[in-house]
Amino acid sequence: MNSEQQDTVLRALNIFAIETPSWGYANTGTRFGKFQQASAATTTEEKFQDAGQVHHFTGCCPTVAVHVLWDFPRGKASTSETKELAAKYGVRVGAINPNVFQDQIYKHGSLGSPEPEARAAAMRHLLDCVEIQHETGSRDLSLWFADGTNFPGSSNIRQRRRWFEEGLREVHEKMSAGQRMLVEYKPFEPAFYHTDIADWGMAYLLSKAAGPLARVLVDTGHHYQAQNIEQIVAWLLHDGMLGGFHFNDRRYADDDLTMGSIDPYQAFRIFHEIAAYEFDTGARADIAYMIDQSHNLKNKVEEMIQTVCFAQETVAKAALVDHGALKVHQEKCDLVAAEEALKDAYNTDVRPVVHEWRKLKGLAPKPLEAFRESGYTDQAERARGQKNREAVASYA
Amino acid sequence: MNSEQQDTVLRALNIFAIETPSWGYANTGTRFGKFQQASAATTTEEKFQDAGQVHHFTGCCPTVAVHVLWDFPRGKASTSETKELAAKYGVRVGAINPNVFQDQIYKHGSLGSPEPEARAAAMRHLLDCVEIQHETGSRDLSLWFADGTNFPGSSNIRQRRRWFEEGLREVHEKMSAGQRMLVEYKPFEPAFYHTDIADWGMAYLLSKAAGPLARVLVDTGHHYQAQNIEQIVAWLLHDGMLGGFHFNDRRYADDDLTMGSIDPYQAFRIFHEIAAYEFDTGARADIAYMIDQSHNLKNKVEEMIQTVCFAQETVAKAALVDHGALKVHQEKCDLVAAEEALKDAYNTDVRPVVHEWRKLKGLAPKPLEAFRESGYTDQAERARGQKNREAVASYA
Amino acid sequence: MNSEQQDTVLRALNIFAIETPSWGYANTGTRFGKFQQASAATTTEEKFQDAGQVHHFTGCCPTVAVHVLWDFPRGKASTSETKELAAKYGVRVGAINPNVFQDQIYKHGSLGSPEPEARAAAMRHLLDCVEIQHETGSRDLSLWFADGTNFPGSSNIRQRRRWFEEGLREVHEKMSAGQRMLVEYKPFEPAFYHTDIADWGMAYLLSKAAGPLARVLVDTGHHYQAQNIEQIVAWLLHDGMLGGFHFNDRRYADDDLTMGSIDPYQAFRIFHEIAAYEFDTGARADIAYMIDQSHNLKNKVEEMIQTVCFAQETVAKAALVDHGALKVHQEKCDLVAAEEALKDAYNTDVRPVVHEWRKLKGLAPKPLEAFRESGYTDQAERARGQKNREAVASYA
Amino acid sequence: MNSEQQDTVLRALNIFAIETPSWGYANTGTRFGKFQQASAATTTEEKFQDAGQVHHFTGCCPTVAVHVLWDFPRGKASTSETKELAAKYGVRVGAINPNVFQDQIYKHGSLGSPEPEARAAAMRHLLDCVEIQHETGSRDLSLWFADGTNFPGSSNIRQRRRWFEEGLREVHEKMSAGQRMLVEYKPFEPAFYHTDIADWGMAYLLSKAAGPLARVLVDTGHHYQAQNIEQIVAWLLHDGMLGGFHFNDRRYADDDLTMGSIDPYQAFRIFHEIAAYEFDTGARADIAYMIDQSHNLKNKVEEMIQTVCFAQETVAKAALVDHGALKVHQEKCDLVAAEEALKDAYNTDVRPVVHEWRKLKGLAPKPLEAFRESGYTDQAERARGQKNREAVASYA
Repeated sequence: MNSEQQDTVLRALNIFAIETPSWGYANTGTRFGKFQQASAATTTEEKFQDAGQVHHFTGCCPTVAVHVLWDFPRGKASTSETKELAAKYGVRVGAINPNVFQDQIYKHGSLGSPEPEARAAAMRHLLDCVEIQHETGSRDLSLWFADGTNFPGSSNIRQRRRWFEEGLREVHEKMSAGQRMLVEYKPFEPAFYHTDIADWGMAYLLSKAAGPLARVLVDTGHHYQAQNIEQIVAWLLHDGMLGGFHFNDRRYADDDLTMGSIDPYQAFRIFHEIAAYEFDTGARADIAYMIDQSHNLKNKVEEMIQTVCFAQETVAKAALVDHGALKVHQEKCDLVAAEEALKDAYNTDVRPVVHEWRKLKGLAPKPLEAFRESGYTDQAERARGQKNREAVASYA
Repeated sequence: MNSEQQDTVLRALNIFAIETPSWGYANTGTRFGKFQQASAATTTEEKFQDAGQVHHFTGCCPTVAVHVLWDFPRGKASTSETKELAAKYGVRVGAINPNVFQDQIYKHGSLGSPEPEARAAAMRHLLDCVEIQHETGSRDLSLWFADGTNFPGSSNIRQRRRWFEEGLREVHEKMSAGQRMLVEYKPFEPAFYHTDIADWGMAYLLSKAAGPLARVLVDTGHHYQAQNIEQIVAWLLHDGMLGGFHFNDRRYADDDLTMGSIDPYQAFRIFHEIAAYEFDTGARADIAYMIDQSHNLKNKVEEMIQTVCFAQETVAKAALVDHGALKVHQEKCDLVAAEEALKDAYNTDVRPVVHEWRKLKGLAPKPLEAFRESGYTDQAERARGQKNREAVASYA
Repeated sequence: MNSEQQDTVLRALNIFAIETPSWGYANTGTRFGKFQQASAATTTEEKFQDAGQVHHFTGCCPTVAVHVLWDFPRGKASTSETKELAAKYGVRVGAINPNVFQDQIYKHGSLGSPEPEARAAAMRHLLDCVEIQHETGSRDLSLWFADGTNFPGSSNIRQRRRWFEEGLREVHEKMSAGQRMLVEYKPFEPAFYHTDIADWGMAYLLSKAAGPLARVLVDTGHHYQAQNIEQIVAWLLHDGMLGGFHFNDRRYADDDLTMGSIDPYQAFRIFHEIAAYEFDTGARADIAYMIDQSHNLKNKVEEMIQTVCFAQETVAKAALVDHGALKVHQEKCDLVAAEEALKDAYNTDVRPVVHEWRKLKGLAPKPLEAFRESGYTDQAERARGQKNREAVASYA
Repeated sequence: MNSEQQDTVLRALNIFAIETPSWGYANTGTRFGKFQQASAATTTEEKFQDAGQVHHFTGCCPTVAVHVLWDFPRGKASTSETKELAAKYGVRVGAINPNVFQDQIYKHGSLGSPEPEARAAAMRHLLDCVEIQHETGSRDLSLWFADGTNFPGSSNIRQRRRWFEEGLREVHEKMSAGQRMLVEYKPFEPAFYHTDIADWGMAYLLSKAAGPLARVLVDTGHHYQAQNIEQIVAWLLHDGMLGGFHFNDRRYADDDLTMGSIDPYQAFRIFHEIAAYEFDTGARADIAYMIDQSHNLKNKVEEMIQTVCFAQETVAKAALVDHGALKVHQEKCDLVAAEEALKDAYNTDVRPVVHEWRKLKGLAPKPLEAFRESGYTDQAERARGQKNREAVASYA
């Protein structure tokens, strides 16, 4: 890597930040049971404490996505307390994530439920979240709806869409310039026959119906097998409709595995499309990069650091693509040369330059090793273990 | 089935017509080779002759989709001749299908190719097709683009989209009120990394960019595994953006198998969404129903008749759903009763009432049997066999 | 339907029984939360009570699959009590289902775990289950292993296979002639990178390694998208290696939806392969038919009855295929006629003859209606509602 | 990379050879048409000439898989001529590939066809191939069967399996110690409902039925979406049943794209399983590495060289895994460290050491560049262009 390339990578890393989710520090599992870890976070304070560690060792995770139901136990009234807890551990409150799926009232949906009480409850919660968003100064309201049905005939799909359009528009009206509404899509789970916002096209049309502050949120695990995610990213960028990402990896369904653990080249291609857009337009893509994973078995802080390191390395690789040369190959339909331009960047071992960036920031070059050596996990196990063991509850 | 239900079915059958494609009567295959049949049609006249048989025995296939490259050998100059051939066999020219994939110039795409000559050639062909459409009086210009790439990096996805927007807009400008442009989507094949119009969302946005006469065409075989096709149908109906169908069935990819041969309940659910839309709005859904299959191994006319009979039976079943009762069950979230309302209709043996409809129309009740007894295939083999055997050419 | 066909169907129904699972009457959900129903069963007694209702109304569900961890709270010591509870409600204990996934010790696997304590714990539990099997007189030990890993590198796949071979062999040694070990396969969930018994081929080889009493168990929801299940059934029948089924339906993953709710023709084709095998060999296929579904949203007893009715109707349809004629069509490669032989049977409305069968057995012709009218659900809600409400625990 | 690691890689490269297929130098396409290239090979001599170039520039492709129908135009009588042509261009004849799908007689199958003439024709061709194998001294007879059906009911699946067992056994009888029969599996295409050898389990059982010289051939593109290929590799290695690979990459179906072009980490994991097996057993895995791709759009020789370079780099990366450390992490269930052991190797830029290996062999360090500079393609276009243009024949 020549020094110009090195500078390119360092600049790319300088402006890259990625948000970790508070729920990524808590115990999770599958429908067959939650996996328990003695050091897992159960309180909002513990979650911020863990998130603070990730930021401390990586230097690029200054904000934490929060979950209103779990991190704002008294709703709006918890706002200043939650902000202070974040600050205490060196991070800030990031995207506001409502929860309109956990309560039994949402059994048949939230904004799309045939039951008026469910729709009303969802609307109240969403409007509360917008108020919290105003108070925390969070830019993004990040919306995931579990709405859908399990069987043909269960519900009127068009009617549910109308309810969604009305509901999102009503929420949007309470938002202000500078804020954004991110609309996530997902093909299935927990609904198994139809999901109201199943793909990017549905999220796109609902965003347009909601209002000008709405954008599409791409969760990399929420696609059909073989679907080309980077093409969706390119289309959304083209239309100014890409709001952000929930990164994770998957093999089968929404597996919520560590980003890059199954298909690292896929992640590279996504970052390449963003870099190519920025090269072509000269503008910076305005995107919220966020992690959304289920750390079932690995130590949660370690897995988060592993993820952040992978994201940085991928940003670095994408920055190395020679866009000028690529453009020439593409215009000449020189497919081999065009592909090799991507492969050259991807095959480069960028770890040394990422280590260099960390040293420039006063960070340990290998965050995972440094964290392991810090003894934090042992401490957390001692402090939280007893409580966690008592909370053990099987799913059955 | 009571007499009211019987009337409902008869009315549904009275207004149902489905278009067969001229290319469905010719020999087809896979990349491993074409399968040869002695009775296959090779000329446009033979295709209309076969299509005429299907209409003769089913009474609901009055139009034939034509393929400009194959059915209009001299382009526009062939128009009157082609119309006359159709009339000779009791059918009419239906949707106009351009071909911008077969010529080697389209190796890297047509409207989306990086090569200006390819884009220009495609535009010339498309504008020719619009002229043919004017002369045949065909309502629909049915557009399928094979455009895409095989490898990451091959092409600039956003640039290709711009070319598509411009190209479709230019074609649309030549069209007149009463005509429609149908834009088809397909996730893959013949392109294996990215396809420019890969899903319904892309076809939707390009249709909107093209102009008010553009609609989305749903080919049932062009979806990801597990994707909910009837939900897409419901969304497109809601927006007035559903232009038509290419029916076929599939198990793996775009297998182009006989409609209903693999998943007949899927076809029922599509027709149910249409019927439910019509019940809710009181309006008739304005949709072009077309067949697009690859009759590799079965006798082609027989397979077409089999398909049409299945389509009619499915229309009949969808007509039997008690929409009023279903609505009540849906509002009460009575999932079992709602599902049973669909299942009751689906489980009904509608063949007797479809036979009745045929008798009322002066048709044989069992078109497949009647066709087999007619001796048409033997005749066709005698008339066409020699020519077909000489044309046998392996793919390799 | 002529009287000969009617007799054929009645005979097929006479010998068809299907087992319901005790866990199918309890509250279930997804990793996002359990759905609560006031009438759900929480004790083993309530589960047998519900299962008794299903048998009462359908007449073909005399046995109940039991789950050792949940239905034998004191292990072997609970056996006589559990048997008596079953008898009290008119059913018998069916397949014995161990649970070697719920305890935290199984975090990295059971028989395939790298941790010797986990393997030992699993072995103890499995041997306990065999003892229970001896005492209950249950024919089948039904084994599902959740074992697998989430990330490349986590474990040595070949070593885990060796442990499985040794473990299954050890369990098999304790079994007696007349008993069977059923080995289930599943591609993913709860493991997301590799599952130790991922497909039928792996279950087959492990069964062969275990011993002559081992057979493969086919759960219809445990396949890759597009995989041909009936071909697997045909191969296993050919080898005498098909032990039983867990029926359910799915669209995406292991959705555990009502059998036949998404793809009823798939279920028909499975029963057709069995009937064809019996026609060809003159022998009766020795198969344990079992239901394994997750009744998240529908009333559980109703969904079970719906399922059983669907299974009976599908058995009836499969019985109607004219195997002699089919054989002739197949030999002549008359694809259209061969397919129509299947379609004719599938399209027949068999509900009247199934109703007839029920009347002959002294049952109400429409079990779902009869159950709804019985008032059982209201009673169960009154009896169990308070307890269920108190048990409400969110997943988070 | 330290010098010990460097030596490890060099040793791994020294013993790695990969076979290119003669048909990979000819024009190919999809069912929508063949793509034409002026420099494509059409004769067997041209194919060997091209294969010779690949070996000349990469030094690790000494053998060429041959296709009996196309490369032995007079059957056995062509053997000495074909061997001499290979020798003329510095390569040897490798695996013998019969063709029992192209002739119209195989419309309903070959060894599995209900038509006795088709089965007999297939058997004659296969026995001819074994004779050719004896004469060429080729170790492997590589069998791919396109057999299957397109519709439920078309054929008796169990009967077809019996015919396959008998047929393969008969072929196996003619083979000698030191030779191998490789049995390939594929889920679909050209058959779209059922394929007689659909997955590894079926290939395994048929291999066992054929005899002791039979092994399973893994084509990386012949799997269901999300299926774990490396687990299949590990199982086959465990049983001594892995015979060889057909490498390529895919996104959707059997796309036959350049190896590593879509999912390079998947290829790494396959080579890792092989290296891990060799580490554990101390034995060398006896595997035929072969390429099977469809070079539709890229220059064929260039794409082949690109593929071989990727394969070498992947072998090099797999050689870098620290198996001793990995074993320790796996035993301690340290999932993060175990995964990082793989990632460390994968993230290493091995190109410099591969270049070093080439220099040691007297090869240009960058084969693709060297080939481009050689002017071979221009020469080939001049020599073959006219002939190729005349042969242009559209599919339609």
